Amino acid sequence: MKLIDGNKIAQSIIESLTKEVSKINGPKPTVAFIRVGEDPASVSYVRKKQKTAENIGIQSLLKILPDSISQEELIEEIEAFNDDSNVHGILIQAPLPDHISETTIFNTVKPEKDVDGFHTLNIGKLCQEDPSGFVACTPAGIVELIKHSKIQTEGKHVVVLGRSQIVGKPAALLMIQKGLPGNATVTICHSKTQNLEVITKQADLIIAAIGRPNFVSEAMVKEGASIIDVGINRIPDSSKKSGFRLVGDVDFEAVSKKCDHITPVPGGVGPMTVAMLMQNTLNAYKNQR
Amino acid sequence: MKLIDGNKIAQSIIESLTKEVSKINGPKPTVAFIRVGEDPASVSYVRKKQKTAENIGIQSLLKILPDSISQEELIEEIEAFNDDSNVHGILIQAPLPDHISETTIFNTVKPEKDVDGFHTLNIGKLCQEDPSGFVACTPAGIVELIKHSKIQTEGKHVVVLGRSQIVGKPAALLMIQKGLPGNATVTICHSKTQNLEVITKQADLIIAAIGRPNFVSEAMVKEGASIIDVGINRIPDSSKKSGFRLVGDVDFEAVSKKCDHITPVPGGVGPMTVAMLMQNTLNAYKNQR
Repeated sequence: MKLIDGNKIAQSIIESLTKEVSKINGPKPTVAFIRVGEDPASVSYVRKKQKTAENIGIQSLLKILPDSISQEELIEEIEAFNDDSNVHGILIQAPLPDHISETTIFNTVKPEKDVDGFHTLNIGKLCQEDPSGFVACTPAGIVELIKHSKIQTEGKHVVVLGRSQIVGKPAALLMIQKGLPGNATVTICHSKTQNLEVITKQADLIIAAIGRPNFVSEAMVKEGASIIDVGINRIPDSSKKSGFRLVGDVDFEAVSKKCDHITPVPGGVGPMTVAMLMQNTLNAYKNQR
Repeated sequence: MKLIDGNKIAQSIIESLTKEVSKINGPKPTVAFIRVGEDPASVSYVRKKQKTAENIGIQSLLKILPDSISQEELIEEIEAFNDDSNVHGILIQAPLPDHISETTIFNTVKPEKDVDGFHTLNIGKLCQEDPSGFVACTPAGIVELIKHSKIQTEGKHVVVLGRSQIVGKPAALLMIQKGLPGNATVTICHSKTQNLEVITKQADLIIAAIGRPNFVSEAMVKEGASIIDVGINRIPDSSKKSGFRLVGDVDFEAVSKKCDHITPVPGGVGPMTVAMLMQNTLNAYKNQR
C-alpha cells in the first residue's frame, strides 16, 4: 500500500507556484475573497486560502459582508471586482444565506476570473474538454494526485461515488476525457445505485465523494485498487479536545490493507483544493495579462 | 422483444406540437437554418427539418452560404439572426468547412436561440441540471424514447458506448441526473475501454453511439436488456438501388432476440432528433415571448 501524501504533493505545487510568482515583475496576481456572514467553517477556509496565497506571493483581498445582504447588493460587490483590472480571480465562499441563489451568484463572476470553476460556462468548457476554462479546485486536485502518484487511468475502470456538481460529475468528466490522466471507463454511482458492491469491486480506481463516514468497506474494494477519498466527515470522538475527529468516506484502516494507492483523510484531497485554487489564480492572471 | 417505434413516437410529438402551434395568435415560432456549401447529406437534413417545421406550422428561413465564406462573414450572418426578434431559433448545419471553427460558430449563436444545444453555456446547464437550457436534439430524443417506452432507469445500470460531445456525454449526463428518466448508474465506455463485453453484459440499458456498424453483438448483451441504437452507418448492399443500406451500431437481428426493448435503424433515434429540434424551437419561442 502506498499512501498518497496530499500535503506533500500540494506543497510541491505551492513551491513551484511560489517560484513562478517570484519572477513576476510589477503587480502580482491578486485574488479577491467574498465571505458572507460569520460561519466558523467559512472563516477558517478563507483564512487558510489567504495564508497560502500570502506564502506564494499572491495578493489577496477579503470583503466580509453581513448575512443580511441582499442578492442585488452582493451582485454589485462582485461586479466591482469584475470591473477591477487589478483583481484576477474572485472566490465567493459557499455556503451563502438561503435567500441568495448560489447559481446566480457564481454566474455573476466573470468567467475569466472564476477561479472556483463554478460558472456555467466553465462547467460547459470542462464537458467540451476546452482547456481555456477553469476546472473546480477539488476535481482538479484529484487529477493532480493521480498524476503525481502515477496511477494509470487509460482503459482502466474508474468508479465515482457521488454525482455532485462540485466533485462527482466534474471528476467523472475529467476521467473520461481524451488524454492523461483520463481515457478511463467511468461509472458514476449514487444513492439510487443498485448492487453497489458488485460495481465498486470492479474498480481499478475509486473516487469516493458521498459524504458518508467510512462508507466504503473492505468488501467493496478489489485487491490492488487505488482509492481517492474526497469525504471529510466529522464523527464524535471523546478522546479529542474538539470532541470529534475527521474521517473520510472510506474505512481507511480496513481498505488500505488491500489497496495499491490510497489517500488519507485528512491530508489527502483537502490540501490539494487550496493548491489548485492558487494554480487557477495564477492562470487567470496570465490569461488577463 | 418490443420494438421502439421512433417514427411513431416522433409523430406523436409532432402532432402535439402542431396542436400547440395552431393555438398561437400572431407571429408564429420561427427557426433560421444556415447551411454552408452543398454537402448532399446537409442539403437533405436541412430539407427534412424545414419540411417538418412546415408541417407543424413553424416558420423557417434558410440562408445558403458558399463553402468559401470566411469565419468572420459567417459570424456576421449569425449575428443578424441573433438580433432579429422575429427569429426564435438558429441552427447551423454541421459539418462546416475546415477553415471555420465549429466551437466558435456554435458559441456565436445566442444561448436563448441555440435550439441545437451546442453552445457551451447550454452544455454547462445540462451538467448543472438547469432546465432553462437547451439539450442537444439526439440525446433529448433518446430520453423521450425511454420515457415513451416506459423503460425503467432509476437505480438501473445504463452503459453508454461513446464519449462524443454530441451524444455520448450528454446522454450520460441525462441518465445520471436527479429525476426520471434518470437516476441511473451510468458507465461510459469508449475506444480505450478494456474488457468491454464484461461491462456491457451488466447493462440494463445500452445506449450505443460509436459509429461502428453492427458492433454490439449478442454476446455483449444481457438477456432482457434494452437497447437504444444511435448509430447510422452506411454499408455496401448491391441489392439496393443506392448501393448501400443503413445499419446501426447494434447487430439488430441477433441482439433483438434477447432484448426487452430495442430501437431499429432506421426508424429509431433518427426521427426523434428532428422532433426534438421542433420542440426546442417552440420552447425558444415561448421563452422569448
